[in-house]
Amino acid sequence: MVYNVNMEKVALVGFGTIGSAVGKIISVDGASRRTSLAHDPNSKSLISDMIANLEVTAIAGLADTEIRDLIDTSPEYAGLRSATVTSNFEDIYATNPDIVVELIGGVHPAYEFIKDALSRGIHVVTANKAVLGEYGNELRQLAVQNGVQLRYEAAVGGAVPVVRAVRSSLMGDKVVSITGVLNGTTNFILDKMTHDGADYADALKQAQELGFAEADPTADVEGEDAAAKISILASLAFGRDLKAASVKRTGITGITQGMIIAAKTRGQVYKLIASAVRTSCSDSSDNIELLVEPRLVPENSAFGELQGSMNAVEIVSEYSGKLIFSGLGAGDTSTASAVLADIVEIAAV
Amino acid sequence: MVYNVNMEKVALVGFGTIGSAVGKIISVDGASRRTSLAHDPNSKSLISDMIANLEVTAIAGLADTEIRDLIDTSPEYAGLRSATVTSNFEDIYATNPDIVVELIGGVHPAYEFIKDALSRGIHVVTANKAVLGEYGNELRQLAVQNGVQLRYEAAVGGAVPVVRAVRSSLMGDKVVSITGVLNGTTNFILDKMTHDGADYADALKQAQELGFAEADPTADVEGEDAAAKISILASLAFGRDLKAASVKRTGITGITQGMIIAAKTRGQVYKLIASAVRTSCSDSSDNIELLVEPRLVPENSAFGELQGSMNAVEIVSEYSGKLIFSGLGAGDTSTASAVLADIVEIAAV
Repeated sequence: MVYNVNMEKVALVGFGTIGSAVGKIISVDGASRRTSLAHDPNSKSLISDMIANLEVTAIAGLADTEIRDLIDTSPEYAGLRSATVTSNFEDIYATNPDIVVELIGGVHPAYEFIKDALSRGIHVVTANKAVLGEYGNELRQLAVQNGVQLRYEAAVGGAVPVVRAVRSSLMGDKVVSITGVLNGTTNFILDKMTHDGADYADALKQAQELGFAEADPTADVEGEDAAAKISILASLAFGRDLKAASVKRTGITGITQGMIIAAKTRGQVYKLIASAVRTSCSDSSDNIELLVEPRLVPENSAFGELQGSMNAVEIVSEYSGKLIFSGLGAGDTSTASAVLADIVEIAAV
Repeated sequence: MVYNVNMEKVALVGFGTIGSAVGKIISVDGASRRTSLAHDPNSKSLISDMIANLEVTAIAGLADTEIRDLIDTSPEYAGLRSATVTSNFEDIYATNPDIVVELIGGVHPAYEFIKDALSRGIHVVTANKAVLGEYGNELRQLAVQNGVQLRYEAAVGGAVPVVRAVRSSLMGDKVVSITGVLNGTTNFILDKMTHDGADYADALKQAQELGFAEADPTADVEGEDAAAKISILASLAFGRDLKAASVKRTGITGITQGMIIAAKTRGQVYKLIASAVRTSCSDSSDNIELLVEPRLVPENSAFGELQGSMNAVEIVSEYSGKLIFSGLGAGDTSTASAVLADIVEIAAV
């Protein structure tokens, strides 16, 4: 390897769909960029050249033998072959990672793991909305105390950079409200009910068969996933400790085909909408209303037109007015792109 | 003043619509947040609390006497009263600013001024698309050489955080194309022609009377403004030195009422569209096509529905797919908010 400036050491914890997509991009794009740079060291630098500086030193996953095999045999993972592959999280620390990427999902043991990494003074990138919805404030404070970064662009909206918008772009502004379609599964089900005339049970079954919904669909259809996401955005936007549990939730299980038809005749469609609204301007914490519920929106509107796993978020702030962001809310490479942006931005500082 | 942690010293150069809006927000919001923090030092911190750490040490503007009067008499500028007010740019350096905010506009002397500030090791925030469209690459390199930041979120898309999206959110991705409605004046004129049946000359006259167009409208109607903006985004996205002059431009002066009516019958409207498209994947610099031209878009689409000074940008990248951002592309507080986000983000590092 000719390119031997300071490599940033990255440990991937979790090597499922997203984790392996992140690993593959680092492997393939890193190698290709190092080749270009070796060929012409003065070639103009894309900011994304930073990817050439990333070295995956460890990969942790329960199926460590399968992961090792995959990496050793697939050319697209060739750049990861020097990594330690382990089923024991603790082993990653022996490789002295600068950045740990947590992609195991679920609240436990992800929470304990992130806490441990931050306490050791290691930057953490995660896509874990469940952990952040419950322990976000504590983990953010822990990161500050340890002088490291905790980043989670991929936890909300997939590739749509809405976390960055709230955290950075509106730094000098005051957010009034955040409203969004943040859950792809319910979007899929409501789409099927609206366009194919399916009833709720059939639409859910189709979603499950196609892999858009889990065997136990509760987290999606009861709005828990959207609640975690809106609580993350609201905590950042309003500087409060707003937990997912404090979101008033109504899921989509009560939506019938009759309701959908009645809405259609008025040019409206149902979407599961998550919202956080500042209801007064004092500094107490009881003035932010957090809600997830099915709402009727015009068919021809930013929210009404969303299909499948498309997400959209509308942010209203005092000085900037209304901003709308939309894009893919899920998908392996799009979520991986958001994870990578966080990794690269930490590495670039 | 109770709040006396490290204050970040800011010099405002240019105190017109945007400059005074920035000054007012720092004055009013900074004071209000310092009061809250003095009252309860442990009160949870909004990221925007950083605004409490900003101190405007100098204001430069040609009308220095009027600016001094305004600041000394208007309560909303009370927080700026200790600032040096001068008509001579050089005087600001005596106040040792950490960040200089260039809001004088136009290529010269803004270019020389930004160069001087960066060379002195001072961070620069600017909204100046004309300078960046011509000298962006040189100034970015100068900033890197001097270990300081050059930020310009407000130069493209007003409050729409599209510069940040290209610079940060897509760091680990590869941009394929950027397409946008980036000029409010032409939007206004085309709107008038489409919805009020005005011909081009009348629509332009109305825009001028209402202050949406300059006496000399060339920069807007001939697409120069949009060309500068797309060249800025493309330079960042593709890591190239792409100047505004290299954009192929067609303005809106040739659009007739007859063309608008014909389009309407097909459900389409004209918009001045700026685009940057990667036409091949090699590393040479002749494979990015930059274009500004009137195009027909469906009436009911993200671009077709934009009115007045609304901007929208669509970014397609390899891993993230299509992202769409929209919001106010102009306006004093919205542009000021983008400038403030840059200031606060520099101050926060």
